[in-house]
Amino acid sequence: MSKKLTLRTEDYSAWYNELVVKADLAENSGVRGCMVIKPYGYAIWEKMQAELDKMFKETGHTNAYFPLFVPKSMFEAEEKNAEGFAKECAIVTHYRLKTDETKPGKLIVDPNAKLEEELIVRPTSEAIIWSTYKGWVQSYRDLPLLINQWANVVRWEMRTRLFLRTAEFLWQEGHTAHATKQEALDETVQMMNVYADFAENFMAIPVVKGVKTETERFAGADETFCIEALMQDGKALQAGTSHFLGQNFAKAFDVKFANAEGKQEHVWGTSWGVSTRLMGALVMTHSDDNGLVLPPNLAPIQVVIVPIFKTDEELERISAVANDLVAQFKKLNISVKFDNRTTQKPGFKFAEWELKGVPVRIAIGPKDLENGTFEVARRDTLSKEVKPAEGIVSYIQDLLEQIQNDLFQRALDYRNAHITKVETFEEFKDVLENKTGFISAHWDGTPETEEKIKELTKATIRCIPLDSVEEEGKCVFTGKASTKRVLFAKAY
Amino acid sequence: MSKKLTLRTEDYSAWYNELVVKADLAENSGVRGCMVIKPYGYAIWEKMQAELDKMFKETGHTNAYFPLFVPKSMFEAEEKNAEGFAKECAIVTHYRLKTDETKPGKLIVDPNAKLEEELIVRPTSEAIIWSTYKGWVQSYRDLPLLINQWANVVRWEMRTRLFLRTAEFLWQEGHTAHATKQEALDETVQMMNVYADFAENFMAIPVVKGVKTETERFAGADETFCIEALMQDGKALQAGTSHFLGQNFAKAFDVKFANAEGKQEHVWGTSWGVSTRLMGALVMTHSDDNGLVLPPNLAPIQVVIVPIFKTDEELERISAVANDLVAQFKKLNISVKFDNRTTQKPGFKFAEWELKGVPVRIAIGPKDLENGTFEVARRDTLSKEVKPAEGIVSYIQDLLEQIQNDLFQRALDYRNAHITKVETFEEFKDVLENKTGFISAHWDGTPETEEKIKELTKATIRCIPLDSVEEEGKCVFTGKASTKRVLFAKAY
Repeated sequence: MSKKLTLRTEDYSAWYNELVVKADLAENSGVRGCMVIKPYGYAIWEKMQAELDKMFKETGHTNAYFPLFVPKSMFEAEEKNAEGFAKECAIVTHYRLKTDETKPGKLIVDPNAKLEEELIVRPTSEAIIWSTYKGWVQSYRDLPLLINQWANVVRWEMRTRLFLRTAEFLWQEGHTAHATKQEALDETVQMMNVYADFAENFMAIPVVKGVKTETERFAGADETFCIEALMQDGKALQAGTSHFLGQNFAKAFDVKFANAEGKQEHVWGTSWGVSTRLMGALVMTHSDDNGLVLPPNLAPIQVVIVPIFKTDEELERISAVANDLVAQFKKLNISVKFDNRTTQKPGFKFAEWELKGVPVRIAIGPKDLENGTFEVARRDTLSKEVKPAEGIVSYIQDLLEQIQNDLFQRALDYRNAHITKVETFEEFKDVLENKTGFISAHWDGTPETEEKIKELTKATIRCIPLDSVEEEGKCVFTGKASTKRVLFAKAY
Repeated sequence: MSKKLTLRTEDYSAWYNELVVKADLAENSGVRGCMVIKPYGYAIWEKMQAELDKMFKETGHTNAYFPLFVPKSMFEAEEKNAEGFAKECAIVTHYRLKTDETKPGKLIVDPNAKLEEELIVRPTSEAIIWSTYKGWVQSYRDLPLLINQWANVVRWEMRTRLFLRTAEFLWQEGHTAHATKQEALDETVQMMNVYADFAENFMAIPVVKGVKTETERFAGADETFCIEALMQDGKALQAGTSHFLGQNFAKAFDVKFANAEGKQEHVWGTSWGVSTRLMGALVMTHSDDNGLVLPPNLAPIQVVIVPIFKTDEELERISAVANDLVAQFKKLNISVKFDNRTTQKPGFKFAEWELKGVPVRIAIGPKDLENGTFEVARRDTLSKEVKPAEGIVSYIQDLLEQIQNDLFQRALDYRNAHITKVETFEEFKDVLENKTGFISAHWDGTPETEEKIKELTKATIRCIPLDSVEEEGKCVFTGKASTKRVLFAKAY
């Protein structure tokens, strides 16, 4: 298989699909719409998980685990939520296969093993979790419940793409229960901020914090907060959502508590999640035509050392130096690989580690041994320089931090350059067609206008940014009065 | 809800069920056979996961993720495996619900959304993984594949019990592929040893390492290695298995590689797993009539500090001392909780932390402040002593290690005292009825005898221990010649 990718300018979508497979992140499986996350891709996901898990625990949350299946009657209890997910869910109807009498070695569904009630494979867990919370909450002393779950969920998407939209995906879903509306709202905002912090400071992905319109809101929520990122092709990607559920699920599942005065009240809820979709955001924020570019925080291998040698004796001398470097990096918790394969040439190795996004490459040849130098290459800028061996380890340590910061700054500059204020629908369409990116425009606040604009341009309202200032304006489509700009974009 | 448990001598099974719920480990859900793992129980499982994951990575394995669903045609490819799991699997047949026209707010399965091919919810992942490995292996250079997955699986058990037997459970499943039979066999044995090391040195659960008989072997394996533990009620519990799959799955899924001479050969495989069942083993190895007893390695809270006070002023003075202790423990990575609730009395707190198995309790009252002492209580022995404040932290650090060791030694003594050699079937039945535990007996090696003994006594062959010595003997049931003793027991 060639390691070369289609150029982004030629076909961004082909570039993405090829990169995900060739960089060993994921591949399509023999199961419609379901992906295999390969070891290298999963190692990146594990780093995301570890950091998020730490952030959740630091904000007082604990993990738990709830069932994969939701009985149909439980699923339909919160009507809006059920309606939102009913059209794309996997349904278990039987619990046994039996031998096909007509075809030896083949199995068929046993018609005598039909379930009394169908089970929905969870597309999200509000129903099963709130039906459990009913048993956990009696008094205000039992609140808040601050629980997170790492799990797989299934949404029967018809058109799937690796990481971005798959029938099964991995995610975390936080589900909290509170005594007051304000506390639940605070939690919702807090978790949006945790996600923004994670995206920007750990993944180096700049995001806009905002609120969804009613149309784009989570089914069953009173308000959905989100973080929105901008991909290199000018399309937006929703990177995380945090929902204020009001008392909707508490009412659907009859979850009440006795307040300090002994009066029964319904509980207030939130839910929030990010998923393996973030892997797609990662790829489309930083990578280039040579392959993956990884922020050092997320790189399973942060530094690769490649020996340049002709003879065994040369390799031996280089190895002594390399192994010493490896030991020094490990002490600093910098993950490092000495690629001393003798079956591959340096050029092959350079291309392979570039494709896989290793942030820093050190090459060592006989000349370097003589001169006391190393060749240091940055993956993000594809630049090379020769550095003295003296102080190399602390230089690389600083460089990794520099790369992390530079990647964020570069993405931020790109994103900021792709937020365009428009006043007319002509401008609106022009930006969409030529410049792409986010469009900051006035909107009359009606779902009808939102729908009409979507029909005409495929652009949707990504969010009402939290930092949107009050200003007098006119809806870009209807010309009706508006007091705030919202962000439109085509989106993944 | 009363915190008191049924006594073990009265009804061991009721004691177990009550303990699991009251100690906040897990509870039954609204979904038949599926459990909710509660935050406290999940925190223990996370400690197991972290340690196992470290051990897997130290032995060269990486994590990946494969689909939840297995198409029926893929599921049936390895016939023995399919036959073994066909009778207890959840089957997805439809992908959409629709509104029930006759009942507003209700949903029904949309008959127009029937899948072309049914999907089996994975009961184990050999089929989906080997169908993937086919694409990953061409040459001997691609081998070995050393991959692990943390996942949920579903087996449609009719009689379920929390942790021990649930329709859905969490586990890890390792799936490796090798160029030679010997390498695959070595891997199988290595992972059995990793499990034994983990069970004994981390969970303080002594285990017997052995091989399963053909009858008890994993469906699709050529050989199953296992670790078997003994519970307090004299019943055995299979705590982990490691399977040598031969070339069975490679042949079923046509996974071949070119060896160094360029000749095509089928790949050799292994798979190995432990599950949330280990939570059940943990409870039934160490706990007592007062509740859970946790080895310090697995305790989410290792030390609890309970203030004994009458006035706010007393609490304040005690808190100053307690907070200082907390800071010191945290520096040593000892997890500690200062239970300064004013809504509960010390006696209530003592009972609660006993129920939850916190290994060490420190009580501090005004007298202690005067005398410069603490009352230190061990959960495992229920013993108390007054210790000087001087050096308390390093004393507790040593004590935690002592408790970990003592728990293992106590369980080992019990287990060793419950391995009984018998020569006759009368003795065999007598041990089962009165002494219980493992029975070491000669067996003629036939599945028929094994089956007959099971019918008559409900005891099965747990394993042929690896350390079983060659000796001349006669089958305890048929009197036929035998050269090795095997271990029988009633089992969970």
